[in-house]
This record gives sequence, C-alpha cells and structure tokens, in this order.
Amino acid sequence: MSNSFGKLFRLTTFGESHGEAVGGVVDGYPAGIDIDLDFIQGELDRRKPGQSAITTARKEADKVEILSGVFEGKSTGCPIGFIVRNSNQRSSDYDNMKDVFRPSHADFTYNYKYGIRDHRGGGRSSARITISRCVGGALAKLALKRLGISVNAYTSQVGTIALDSDYRKYDLESAEENIVRCPDKAKAEEMIKLISEVKAEGDTIGGTITCVIKGCPAGLGEPEFDKLHAALGSAMLGINAVKGIEFGAGFGMSARRGSEVNDLFFNDNGRIATRTNNSGGIQGGISNGEDIYFRIAFKPIATLLKDQTTVNKDGEEVNLKAKGRHDPCVLPRAVPIVEAMAAMTILDQYLLSKTIKL
Amino acid sequence: MSNSFGKLFRLTTFGESHGEAVGGVVDGYPAGIDIDLDFIQGELDRRKPGQSAITTARKEADKVEILSGVFEGKSTGCPIGFIVRNSNQRSSDYDNMKDVFRPSHADFTYNYKYGIRDHRGGGRSSARITISRCVGGALAKLALKRLGISVNAYTSQVGTIALDSDYRKYDLESAEENIVRCPDKAKAEEMIKLISEVKAEGDTIGGTITCVIKGCPAGLGEPEFDKLHAALGSAMLGINAVKGIEFGAGFGMSARRGSEVNDLFFNDNGRIATRTNNSGGIQGGISNGEDIYFRIAFKPIATLLKDQTTVNKDGEEVNLKAKGRHDPCVLPRAVPIVEAMAAMTILDQYLLSKTIKL
Amino acid sequence: MSNSFGKLFRLTTFGESHGEAVGGVVDGYPAGIDIDLDFIQGELDRRKPGQSAITTARKEADKVEILSGVFEGKSTGCPIGFIVRNSNQRSSDYDNMKDVFRPSHADFTYNYKYGIRDHRGGGRSSARITISRCVGGALAKLALKRLGISVNAYTSQVGTIALDSDYRKYDLESAEENIVRCPDKAKAEEMIKLISEVKAEGDTIGGTITCVIKGCPAGLGEPEFDKLHAALGSAMLGINAVKGIEFGAGFGMSARRGSEVNDLFFNDNGRIATRTNNSGGIQGGISNGEDIYFRIAFKPIATLLKDQTTVNKDGEEVNLKAKGRHDPCVLPRAVPIVEAMAAMTILDQYLLSKTIKL
Amino acid sequence: MSNSFGKLFRLTTFGESHGEAVGGVVDGYPAGIDIDLDFIQGELDRRKPGQSAITTARKEADKVEILSGVFEGKSTGCPIGFIVRNSNQRSSDYDNMKDVFRPSHADFTYNYKYGIRDHRGGGRSSARITISRCVGGALAKLALKRLGISVNAYTSQVGTIALDSDYRKYDLESAEENIVRCPDKAKAEEMIKLISEVKAEGDTIGGTITCVIKGCPAGLGEPEFDKLHAALGSAMLGINAVKGIEFGAGFGMSARRGSEVNDLFFNDNGRIATRTNNSGGIQGGISNGEDIYFRIAFKPIATLLKDQTTVNKDGEEVNLKAKGRHDPCVLPRAVPIVEAMAAMTILDQYLLSKTIKL
Repeated sequence: MSNSFGKLFRLTTFGESHGEAVGGVVDGYPAGIDIDLDFIQGELDRRKPGQSAITTARKEADKVEILSGVFEGKSTGCPIGFIVRNSNQRSSDYDNMKDVFRPSHADFTYNYKYGIRDHRGGGRSSARITISRCVGGALAKLALKRLGISVNAYTSQVGTIALDSDYRKYDLESAEENIVRCPDKAKAEEMIKLISEVKAEGDTIGGTITCVIKGCPAGLGEPEFDKLHAALGSAMLGINAVKGIEFGAGFGMSARRGSEVNDLFFNDNGRIATRTNNSGGIQGGISNGEDIYFRIAFKPIATLLKDQTTVNKDGEEVNLKAKGRHDPCVLPRAVPIVEAMAAMTILDQYLLSKTIKL
Repeated sequence: MSNSFGKLFRLTTFGESHGEAVGGVVDGYPAGIDIDLDFIQGELDRRKPGQSAITTARKEADKVEILSGVFEGKSTGCPIGFIVRNSNQRSSDYDNMKDVFRPSHADFTYNYKYGIRDHRGGGRSSARITISRCVGGALAKLALKRLGISVNAYTSQVGTIALDSDYRKYDLESAEENIVRCPDKAKAEEMIKLISEVKAEGDTIGGTITCVIKGCPAGLGEPEFDKLHAALGSAMLGINAVKGIEFGAGFGMSARRGSEVNDLFFNDNGRIATRTNNSGGIQGGISNGEDIYFRIAFKPIATLLKDQTTVNKDGEEVNLKAKGRHDPCVLPRAVPIVEAMAAMTILDQYLLSKTIKL
Repeated sequence: MSNSFGKLFRLTTFGESHGEAVGGVVDGYPAGIDIDLDFIQGELDRRKPGQSAITTARKEADKVEILSGVFEGKSTGCPIGFIVRNSNQRSSDYDNMKDVFRPSHADFTYNYKYGIRDHRGGGRSSARITISRCVGGALAKLALKRLGISVNAYTSQVGTIALDSDYRKYDLESAEENIVRCPDKAKAEEMIKLISEVKAEGDTIGGTITCVIKGCPAGLGEPEFDKLHAALGSAMLGINAVKGIEFGAGFGMSARRGSEVNDLFFNDNGRIATRTNNSGGIQGGISNGEDIYFRIAFKPIATLLKDQTTVNKDGEEVNLKAKGRHDPCVLPRAVPIVEAMAAMTILDQYLLSKTIKL
Repeated sequence: MSNSFGKLFRLTTFGESHGEAVGGVVDGYPAGIDIDLDFIQGELDRRKPGQSAITTARKEADKVEILSGVFEGKSTGCPIGFIVRNSNQRSSDYDNMKDVFRPSHADFTYNYKYGIRDHRGGGRSSARITISRCVGGALAKLALKRLGISVNAYTSQVGTIALDSDYRKYDLESAEENIVRCPDKAKAEEMIKLISEVKAEGDTIGGTITCVIKGCPAGLGEPEFDKLHAALGSAMLGINAVKGIEFGAGFGMSARRGSEVNDLFFNDNGRIATRTNNSGGIQGGISNGEDIYFRIAFKPIATLLKDQTTVNKDGEEVNLKAKGRHDPCVLPRAVPIVEAMAAMTILDQYLLSKTIKL
C-alpha cells in the first residue's frame, strides 16, 4: 500500500537510485485523453539532474518509455505502465556509506524497518524515485488542461531570502526562466548566489515552495477525513525533505481574529466569490472556486560533503564525509514534483466528485 | 470513502449536529485488549461542550454507548460500533442561516457539492462530529498504552500569546489543569483572558496546538507516499479549522543549513539515538525512535456573533449575525481531538509495521 | 478492512447476535435520493426470524433506526448510520456450546483466529448480522430504481427438489407469495414439505438461490481483477453458508464447445444484443446490457438439533446436541440478502463507471 | 483500482497483447526473502504460448526482467517492478476484427465502456496479460514456501472427460508430466485427443481446474465480507473465461443434509482436525487447518477459427472468421495462473492475519 497514491487516479511506483530502472503504473486514467509524449518528457526534464550549476552533477538522460495504455495517441482507460532506465550510477561513491548512517537521512530508519537496504545512491529513499511522480503528474496535467485547471509552483524562499509579495504579484510562468525557479528575478539571483556559496562549503540549505492551482471548480474534497487540505497535505508531506505545509494565510491566521480573516462572500456577476482568499480556496475541506494556494517547508538536504559525526551499523561512533554527487538545495528540482503531486491530487478529487450524484 | 480513516485500524463515522445521533465503527481493532469504558467516556468529556466559561454553552451529556466488539471486558477483534445521542439541539437558532452562507464556513461548499445539506447546527460540518474521533482515539490509546506509547497535545499559542519554550520544558500532563489546556500556567491565564475578551466581542480567535508522541518505536511509517509525515499530516489537516502543520523544527528549517540542523547520531548505551531532534522523530518518513512532535495551526472559528456581509442561495448580498451557541476559540476542545487522531495514526502504522517481515 | 464492502458505495457493519445492537454505516451514497423508510423496513421484514413455520422461532421486531445522512426525506451525501436493537436473546441456550466447537460452524475458526469470541448466539458469525446488509441493500435498491435496474432472487433448489426451467419462465415477483420464496408454486410446496420433515428430525438441508438483474446498462465491471464476475462473486461468497457460484450457463459450459455456447450478436432495433445469453450478461468481466443472472450454492446450516461428536477447547472429544432456535434451511431468509449484496455491488460498479471519462 | 490485486501484498499490472511490454509492480512483499529468479522464469514458462501442440502457436520468449526491490538476491521490502517485452506480435492478423465484435468476447464490452480500445491481439483483454499474475504468483510462492504452504492446480475436466476421483487420489506434482496438466495419465491422453480434434475443427472447448492448498494454517480469512471464500473466489473469477467456482463439496452440498456433510472434529494427536473435509478447509470464512480445495469452471474460449455471425461497430450484421493464433482450450496454460492467484491470495491473507493481535 505504501507505494501507491490516489484513490481513483492511482499511481504506483517502483525503483531505486542504482537499480535497473525506476517506473510506475498509472491506473484509473480517464479514457480518450490526447497523450502528448513531448510534454511528459518535458516535465521529466524539469526535474532531471545536472540541468544547472546549482544541481547535482549526475548526468542522466531520463528518457521515459510508455509501455501501455495509449493507443493511436489517446489514453484507452487501461493502466499506463512506464519506465526510465538508470544509467549514470557511480555506486562506488557510496561504499563508505554502506554501513554508516548519514545524520538526518533515511539510512538508519530504512535499515531498522526492513533489516536490509540497497544503500547505493540512497536506494529507494533517493530523490531519483520522484521521476515516477513527474510522469504521473504530467499525465494528470494533460487531463486537467481539458478541464481548464492549471498548477504552478515556484521557489518562494531559500535560506533567509524570501519573496516579499504573494503569488498574485508575479507572472508564475516566468519562474521557469531562471535555474532556481523563482518568479522574482532579483530574488532569484540572490538565491542562486546563496546556493552556490553553500555548495562551495559542502553544505546544504532549506527553503519553501509555493503552489497555486487556478481554475479548480468548487466542490472538490471529501468533507470528513479526506478534506482537500488532508489530500493535498498528504501528497506534499510525502515528498522527500518536506517538514511542513500551510494553506492560504496558514500559520498567520493562528494569531488573528475571525473578523479579520473571514473571507466575505459577494456576488461576482453571477458567481459566488470571496473578497479575500485567506482560506486558500478551501472551506470546510472543500474547494470553493477561488485559487487554491499553499506553501511547503523543505529542510536542507541531509547529505553533506563535509565531516559529521555519526554511528555505523555496529553502533560505533565514526566520522563521515559523503562522496557522490548531491544537490546543495532541493528546491529547484522539487518545483515540478510539487506540481506533479498537486495535479494528481486534484484529478483524483475531480473523479471522486463525479460520483456524488446519480 | 470519505468518512473512513486508517488502513488496518479503521474508523468510519456518521452523524450530524442536530440528527438523531453521532457514532461510528472501529474496524481492525486488535483482539484481547482490556476496554476501560470509564477511560473512553473521560476522553469524550474532555471535548464536550459547556465544560468551561470559554467554550460553547451547549450542554450535552455526550454519553457513549458501545454496541459491539467487546465481550467480558475485552475486545474480540470484531468491529466496535458506538453511538452518542444528540439531545440539546436548538435547531431554531439556525433558521436565519438556512439559506445564507456564513463567511469562511463550510455552508457554501457543502451546498455546492451536494446540492442539499442539513443546515441545522452545521450538520455534518459541525465540530460535534469529532465525538466519533474521540471514541476511536480513546480505543487507540488503550492499545498504545500496552505498547508503552503516550500521546499528549496542548495549546501552545492563542492569538499572539505563544509559549516561549519547547515541549521538553513542560510537564505535559499539567495542561489538563486549566481550561485552555496549556502547560504554562502564566500563559494559560493570559490566553483565557484573551479568549474571554474575544468572546465578549462576539468574535473568535485562532491558535496552535503542539502534539508529542513518546515511546514510539523506530520503523513506523511507509516510506514512499505514506510517510509518517503524510499519515500524521493527513490526520491533522482533516480536523476542522486546521490550516497548517509542521514537524520538528518545521518551517524554521527552511532558513537553515544542513550543518546547523542535521541530527547527529550517537550510541546511547546501546540504542542509536540523536543528539538533537530537529527531525521531530521522523527521518525518511519513518520514525527513528526519538520523540515525535509537531505543531498545528488553527484559524479562528468562522461563525461570528457579529455582523458580516455575505450572500444567500439566490446570490443576494445580505447581512448575517449568527445566533446559536458557538465556541470563541476551538483550541481547548481540539486538544483531545488532536490526540485522538495521532493515537489512531500511530496504532494503524504499528499494525502495518507488523507485516513487513514474514 | 474485513467489515466493509464496496469501493465508492461502501457499507461497514458491526454487531453480534446477542450484543446490544447490530448496525452499520453506508458511505458514498449518492445525494438527493428519496429515502423511503417503509421500503427499507419492508426489506428487513423479509429476512427477519420467526416469519413462518420453516424459519427459526426467534422473534425479533428488527426495527431499523436511521441515525444520519437523511434530511427532509432525501439523502444528503453524508454517511447513513443505522442500528437495529437486539431484544429477544436467550443466551443461556448457548451455555453448552461455550467451550465446544459445533462441526462445520465458525466456532472453531473464530476461536483460533482471535483467541476470544462471543459464543452467545454465534456472536459475529450469526446470520443475524446480515441485517446490516439488508439495510444497505435496501438503500442501494432505492438508487437503482432511479436507474431502472431491478434485482430479484429466488429459491431455485432445496435438497434434490430443483426447478426445471430457467428464470425466463417465471414471474419473479411471485416468489414472494410463498414462504420458501420459489416462483414455481408446485415446487414450492414440495420444498416446504421437505424442509418441515428435515426440521422435525433436527436436521438441516441445503439448496440454491438464483439471482437476476434486469435493466443493467452495458459497461459495468472493471476488466482486470475486479471483473463483474469477481465483484458479484465476492459479494455472494461472503454470505454465510455459500460454497459456490456460477454465472450464466456456468459449470455447464465446461463441457461444451465455443460454437455451441457463444452468444451471437445481432442488431435489435438499434441496440447491440445477443441471441442467447449463456454469458449471463457479462463478457470480458463487463456487463453487456443483457440480463445478469447467477446461481449460488448454499450448504446445509451447520447447527443441528441432534447429536454429533466433536471436541471442546481442551481438545476433548464430546457429544453435542445444540439448543437454541435455528433455521432448518437458510434459503428462504437468504433470498433478500442475496438481493441486497447484488444491489450494492451493481450500484458500486455504476458509480465507478462514471469515472472512466472526464 | 481495477488493475490492482490484494490488500497488503498488492500486485498492480499493465500491458496489452501487442503493446511494448506487459508488466507490473508487487508492493507489500515481505523483506528478506530469497528471490530465485530461475524459479520465477520457470513459472512464466509454464504459461507461455507455443509450449505444446495443443496451445497457440504464437512464439514468445517471455523473459522477465526484475527492475527493483531485490538487492544481493534478497527482497528489500521495496516494490518489485518487472516487465516482459512483447515481441512476436502479428497485429495484421487482427485487421478484420478491428471494427467487429467477436461473439462472447470482450470486444464489445470494452468498446462500449471506454469508447476506444486497442483491438490488436485482444489488447488488454488478452490472456497475455496474465503474465504479470504469474510473476506475482511466483514471488508469492517463494514466500509461502518459507511458511510450508504449497499450491497445486491441475486440469480436472475437459469437455465431458472428467476425473473420477478427488485430489487425494493423485500425485499432484505429476500433472506437470503431460501437456494438458492432468494428474491422471489415461484421462490426460483422452483430453489431449479431444483438444486436438476440437482444434482441427477451428472450435474451442471448456473444462474445469481444481486447486489444492496444503499446509495453510488455521485462522486465515476475514470473517465478514472478505471471507476466504470471497477472497479466493474473487481471485479466480477475475481470470479470463472463468464462469464459476465451488469450494469443498460445493454445489453437491446443496442437495444434502447437515448430518450428511458436517465435518466432525476430532483430536488428531493434539491438533484439532476434521474427519471429513466437505468444507474444503474453510469454515465461517476462515481456514481451519485442513487442505483448502476448490474447482473452477472455464467456458470455451470465445475466438473461433470458423464462421460466426455478429455485428460491427456500426451495428451491421456480418460474418466473422477469426485469424490469428489462438488456444483451442484455455486450461493447460491456465493451471499456473490459478496457482498464482491462489498463492497471492493466501500470502495476502497471511499478512493480514499478523495484525489481529498486538
């Protein structure tokens, strides 16, 4: 159960960083959707390693191969299987980490849980396995496009460099124009400089990503346990290195009064709309037709290229300095993953919403 | 699907605020557990309305009736059905809200989604339905006690009044000694004063709750989509009025470097432990044996006893001043609900962890 | 997980024969359906004990109480909770079976599985728990009626007395006119006579029930693992005492050639229809628009009012003659249960089918 | 949801007959199991086409490639992805069936359900997709071997040629010694002769398969809706061409009395055993420690190499004589598929049974 996501639209993934391939199966994908393979590959390219000076130097083609579920360019309603071969592994980089647990990494917990693990490249806990999410997300986006729903994420903070304004002030598409994926050009340059410095020190840095969903109809989200907050939250909190999420005005609302933050309804030419959107487009756990937006906290990547003390499998305290090719900051490559998870969640909820009435 | 929670330990709930009863079914509860009915009722009493000057004045006995699954004081492995009768409804209080949507409330989204809703007392979106969660949580706690796992939540912020220190500085049990459920006596008094003022104005106020799980073994949490972050996050984000969550050092880690926040391992007399716990007890999505802790943001309750502009079903703009008996601040009564959701999540994950090896 | 049925339309049940109540929750029920309470109670009355000379003498009012999910006579899309109180228990009848395992009954397997069981009246393994299925089935029928789909079951064999003809030769509604629920009046009398004889001997007898679903649209059923055969089969094989099922010409087709049993398509005034229906309305696991029909094998009820040798909990061999009020033949009261399970399955599949296209 | 099987052990499949590849993902596989790749390939070889004179002439290497979840020869608890390339397609054989619905085949129902289908080689409805089941089943068998549980199926009837005796009279392993997979040598020859005759006529023939599970502990099976009957039944009724199933003495018990068919318990040197096994090893939906056995009805394969009348997409009545390479009888190649589905079901239930007690 642990490797499937979604209820009606359902992605199941497999693969390790240094195994044969990563891949997955998308089940429950609607029939009759035009499958644009270039778009899917493009989404993968957005997360691939080695794409810029501030990401890992591992070079992978990451070419996706769709194996089923598409016929004459259209989805058939049958499951879509896909794989991406691993090719540029340097497993020997990980020899010194075979029996040693990197601080704050999944090494220890995997080993404890399963009693066995593929340590090479982080195995199943590697960010490489998010490839499958990007493919699933790209498919979801193709379906959402037909529904007029868009999903855009961007880097809103790196270290202490944070955007001053909220998403409404930016051209969200412009985030793709720089390598840190931030729609504020000046801030982007500061962020890139900071990441470069951190990288030079063998250190890593955290940050936040903001995600915005536009065009989402009212009525999505199951009201009791599977509120849209819970569904999107679960999706985001399942991304590597994520430690927090807030919707709309989020933690800020904890310090405020109802009369300050309630979103008043008005009649916007026939549509019932709200004058403010502190709710982030979700009320009572259900979308209300306004923009959905949320912010996600990423901790710094655990693997450092500098000395740290830790223990090995035998409980002996040792010094560890990682080798291998690692990102100094997860955010630039995490932006497409956030979008992918959001797109899959919304499509799944959309399909669920079709079953409410006969 | 929307009204069930958990995978192996599974709570399904039903009920509306002004219907006949609220209740639920707990399925997958382990056989052979001693069922302490007084403890269960005690947990319900912690969330019941009318318990203090800062909660709603609605008076309900909220007496739980266990209907099945217990025989001679022990769980049988069969589903545990239970109900709590509604008795102190004053449905006429809601007559003026029948066709009007309260700002930032679930009124509009429910109506849009289903085309029909029981408006009395908020119907299914009422906080009253969390009774079923408290019963499920109490059962989960009874099982966790056998495993040496404890779950404690407390109010850590109301409005701008926030605790200075983290959970390690407090006697968590002492939170029950005041009506706002805060383990810092002086801050508790400030909070109570603030809530009373807000109440007098017909307004409401937000805050945060912190939850701490001790004694949880390493190895809980499914590593890919159902990380322990995701499971706990989904549980918390499904609580009414919750708008955010952060684990361990949370959003604070977004501004930091790996070398500052990584939790270094050491050998603690044979147990592999960490010197700090910025991870909040979860690494790679799996518990690592340290305390699990997280903080949850609650927005102010939407229903105000003061004038607000809004629209009705016909899209006409109207003034609304709610009647009825409403809480000015959700936190004091939400503390047991947070604990209940956490307890159920941990028990569910514990059961899942038993299936990893033959 | 074991006590829930269905994917989108989902019934969760609880209760034991001699506990406080039996009941359940229907989740995923479409909003806006007229809820006819008399119809639901009528369906329960069809399965209640003591309804005729050939059923158990236990007398129960079996009055259903709907607790939620219905507002002003219509379903709201919220979960429908319901209970039926147990009242006419005579638990002392079961004292001699407390530590003894009835042959071919669930006594031994429950005890082995859980290490504890409520032995009174068969506890959770009692046919009494099918009450919840009847309520769920009645709700499903109300929704299917709107779709023009009918479900009818009838007793087609008791012992060696079997109907000569297939369902097309009978007025299926007429099965309700006699106490054995067989649409062939003459055969019905023979069956009743046989059951009376068997009862007089303290023995029990098996039989078959046939179920027919008319008006079901083509396209229901998930093609790979959840074929309509599998969904209906699982529903039926979960009924107490069922040991087999066959669809359409069933086991008979094992002895035949494709050229003999293939159902040839033809154009029936614009509808693609088949000239024969050996497939029983299901091809490739999906409904084809023809009548769906299948036949279910019931073994004789295990509990005999005559001596049998068996063992007790300590493994000692003992003689057992049951007391209590037991049915000599399960079929008359099983007919509404078969219909209920079929109705819930078809409604669930109908809802699933709505999600295939955007 | 439609393409996944199992709850804790979970197989998700993809692929079409003439697509790039078929494959799947096994999730929830226990960690630490020795993965014998030759055994897995051997199981695939048992179902592959072209293996004898009485199967289809399509020649495929059907070489399985395991892509993840195995490290240094052992399972890691991570999902096991696998693919088998399609190579020997002759899609042009299907040109005349592109717009025509084969009688009793899935052509019509798929087309109706999805509005689009890959007609080549039967697409997703092809028996070829059972490759993924064989791989999942082989993995399950490797785990069951550690538990001392064996699963054996064999052809027990072809047309009117049926075995006289029940499974206890045969050496079940010997079924592999002949191409029809029947443990009765003389009957096997008759069956082979019959299939050859039927094949020469361009016709097809049905039959039954019997499956026996030995060494299964008591206590498997969820007692309410997911009885072991229901779980195994659903697994079997999801196999192509299956139209019925009966457990133990099955339909035969419908004609008998309780006193004739009840299985009396006795003390078998400390183990509670039954003197007969009409129950087929399942009582109250739970395994009782005796052999589990059941019989499955297969209809004749729908595709005939002789003329049949049918309709095309436009509803026009046409004559159809299939081309392509088709099996005249599904049974010989279905034997390993039956075993695979049974093995996966039992492993899944075994894992579930570990969660009943703390």
